[in-house]
Amino acid sequence: MTEHSLWRFSRALHRAINERQPQDLEALIDDDVDWAIYGPIDMFPFLGARRGKEAVLEVIRQIAENIRIHRFDRETVMLGVDSAASMMRYSLTSLESNKPISLRVAHFAQFKGGRLSNIRVLMDSFDLVEQALGHSLHLPRMTA
Amino acid sequence: MTEHSLWRFSRALHRAINERQPQDLEALIDDDVDWAIYGPIDMFPFLGARRGKEAVLEVIRQIAENIRIHRFDRETVMLGVDSAASMMRYSLTSLESNKPISLRVAHFAQFKGGRLSNIRVLMDSFDLVEQALGHSLHLPRMTA
Repeated sequence: MTEHSLWRFSRALHRAINERQPQDLEALIDDDVDWAIYGPIDMFPFLGARRGKEAVLEVIRQIAENIRIHRFDRETVMLGVDSAASMMRYSLTSLESNKPISLRVAHFAQFKGGRLSNIRVLMDSFDLVEQALGHSLHLPRMTA
Repeated sequence: MTEHSLWRFSRALHRAINERQPQDLEALIDDDVDWAIYGPIDMFPFLGARRGKEAVLEVIRQIAENIRIHRFDRETVMLGVDSAASMMRYSLTSLESNKPISLRVAHFAQFKGGRLSNIRVLMDSFDLVEQALGHSLHLPRMTA
């Protein structure tokens, strides 16, 4: 039984980020990949949408310059033939502030011939902002 | 072929929220359901974790008092035998402020005997906060 593309991609991605070794990853990204990490791009310019392998490798390089991954726990995973979705918890450090950040992340990925062709990543972005700022933001209570 | 539990649950949930008719939903929730919608609970007290059918029905009643769903598009869906995950876009109105809100949401759900036993919902919560406030929050740029 062949290993699912998700596992190979995940190992290569974490190696590219933590060790700044993107070589394994390059072969696992489709030339026309459609990539989006939804979140506050004003605060973190390496979030947002990218199209094509070069743009994605460049944004992963920027991510590698800004965060270090200490740990991730995959709480839920669903695998299709050429697709995968997970809910994960990441323990990160923001290298700019040296702050530890604990972040819940969901991704939906599609692969074509073993290469990533589409990924959508969602996170609890308000929680991320508060942790990155290092303090709570006052919010009004909104209830009808 | 039997309809997947997700579709029945989804119809009943939307009916419970928009029409405040939770009767169909009651039969589709496990007594010991484990429920979490991650997000800013200070602003929206109906977010957060709940345990057990009564607590979940109560929080759905609170959600129904606070939002109206105009439309949702399921961009990605993955179905397992007793599980499902989707990435969705919701168009909502906050009934307290009468503001339209467009929100990206991911969920991972598990069913037991056709009833919801576990659900985790993640959303782009910073985007939600800014839309609910009706203005942008100034954020510093964080890059190493």
